[in-house]
Amino acid sequence: MSLNADHRWLAAAAALAARGRPLSRPNPAVGALIVRDGVVIARGWTQPGGRPHAEAIALAAAGAAARGATLYVSLEPCAHQSPRGPACADLVAASGLSRVVVGCGDPDPRTAGQGIARIAAAGITVEHLPSPACTASLAGYLSLRKRGRPHVTLKLATSLDGCIALANGESQWITGPEARAHCHAERARADAILVGGGTLRADNPRLDVRLPGLAERSPQRWVLTRGAAPAGWHALPDPAALSAMDGLQYLFVEGGAETAAAFLRAGLVDDLLLYRAPILIGGGKPGIADLGLTALADAHGQWRRTDFRQLGNDTVERYERC
Amino acid sequence: MSLNADHRWLAAAAALAARGRPLSRPNPAVGALIVRDGVVIARGWTQPGGRPHAEAIALAAAGAAARGATLYVSLEPCAHQSPRGPACADLVAASGLSRVVVGCGDPDPRTAGQGIARIAAAGITVEHLPSPACTASLAGYLSLRKRGRPHVTLKLATSLDGCIALANGESQWITGPEARAHCHAERARADAILVGGGTLRADNPRLDVRLPGLAERSPQRWVLTRGAAPAGWHALPDPAALSAMDGLQYLFVEGGAETAAAFLRAGLVDDLLLYRAPILIGGGKPGIADLGLTALADAHGQWRRTDFRQLGNDTVERYERC
Repeated sequence: MSLNADHRWLAAAAALAARGRPLSRPNPAVGALIVRDGVVIARGWTQPGGRPHAEAIALAAAGAAARGATLYVSLEPCAHQSPRGPACADLVAASGLSRVVVGCGDPDPRTAGQGIARIAAAGITVEHLPSPACTASLAGYLSLRKRGRPHVTLKLATSLDGCIALANGESQWITGPEARAHCHAERARADAILVGGGTLRADNPRLDVRLPGLAERSPQRWVLTRGAAPAGWHALPDPAALSAMDGLQYLFVEGGAETAAAFLRAGLVDDLLLYRAPILIGGGKPGIADLGLTALADAHGQWRRTDFRQLGNDTVERYERC
Repeated sequence: MSLNADHRWLAAAAALAARGRPLSRPNPAVGALIVRDGVVIARGWTQPGGRPHAEAIALAAAGAAARGATLYVSLEPCAHQSPRGPACADLVAASGLSRVVVGCGDPDPRTAGQGIARIAAAGITVEHLPSPACTASLAGYLSLRKRGRPHVTLKLATSLDGCIALANGESQWITGPEARAHCHAERARADAILVGGGTLRADNPRLDVRLPGLAERSPQRWVLTRGAAPAGWHALPDPAALSAMDGLQYLFVEGGAETAAAFLRAGLVDDLLLYRAPILIGGGKPGIADLGLTALADAHGQWRRTDFRQLGNDTVERYERC
């Protein structure tokens, strides 16, 4: 199999993994494909609550057909027994697979290389092929493991001139229904949504997922406040306290301007999700409060656009940290 | 010839016309193609100062080969004699062409339909096929003829959050060299550039075209001020006085925020040219001052994106009035 083909299968496994996000928590959302002669014969992704794992599902689906086939898996198979299920490395070792391609190593010290080693010890060809698609699909898990905090996406919905509301505060709506539906789908991919105390008091936002079939996905609601959270909400006293969001992998920050600035100043924004409507407001409320910049050079080289799409009359762009 | 093919030839004539912009002033920048059996046998565009006209150049280039061929011309051939040259309608009538396709009627009362009539009277098949590409290529001329004022493009160069400078005023540079070169090429397509009095005092901008081979194209420099213009500059007391910009077809407004808002409030911006750098400033200077909006509904439905390009790290978008 060519290197390009391996990368494409890993990207397909990463895309499959997205189906597990975010309900796989506290486990990573993993995708697995079993391929023989260029044909997918089984697949799996991490189920809600984290079990069964993707590899276990794919191997069970393949049964005896796994013999001699190749497993593509977005994350290194786990090497640790759990009361909730067997170690995937042991399942893979006993599977009869002839080859395993892993898109991302697992930083969990109970696995970290041991999953790959145990599979290799069983005589199976196993390769770690670092895959940007797999790494991106595991951003929340990797952030939690390596930095002890969730992956943070800052969402902004602005006019072309960067305003999130009129001077009189009117903000419904800047963007149209297609962009708002897209935003609800993004919410459904997060473990938690956070707004600032001012936004909570001013807008009392529901922050739920209002899409057919996804209402169950509505994330935890957090407010950035040093005070007590209202009923149904969690309080985060400071962006630096992110590590207290126990086990959450993906945080979606929806503003307002002071909250956006607080996360940006703390260097705690990994992705920007920027919705823009083809309107000019002029003299409205800016989307981001003071970042304390004193030199333009400090603003450059931080963000890289990774996506641009039309959504009705509006656009959505993604930027990630360089 | 199919309708689609005719539209494509007219679009090609419009693209050729762009070579005449803006040096054709006070005449429109027109493009002409003479086509036989699907092959361009001659072409022309309006020369600096407005003469010779596009049709005259193309017909002279074609000579006897024009007999039986088709002329595609972005604007109706002129019907009026001038001390500076013959009427193109007469040249076309005597050309031996078998067919003429016109992309845009000429609102000049000396021509307005008479150019087409005179060609038809010579026994040549002549069609007026309204072409969006031709109309767009004549935006400045049509604005001047129909509204008595130049076509106005507002240029903004902002961060992702809509700022044109830091709070301390630093604005060099928001965008990178590719976007700045693109902007200089856009300046070269304008008859005049305008900035506000505050920008003139703060930045003393050169507003020239700093591109190899295009320095001669540097447009007139105008400042929005009720006072006197400095040496080398023209003064515009108010956006509503645009009609006093005698004979100019294309005005390029480069800010600052108060000037942008003044033109927008007056409904005198036809196009937005929006450069954006992948940076966040937060609490910087907004690109557009107060537009006096009291309802978001009034902001919607005004602008339509017509172009989006990557320029180095930056992007440029065009929006036109709906």
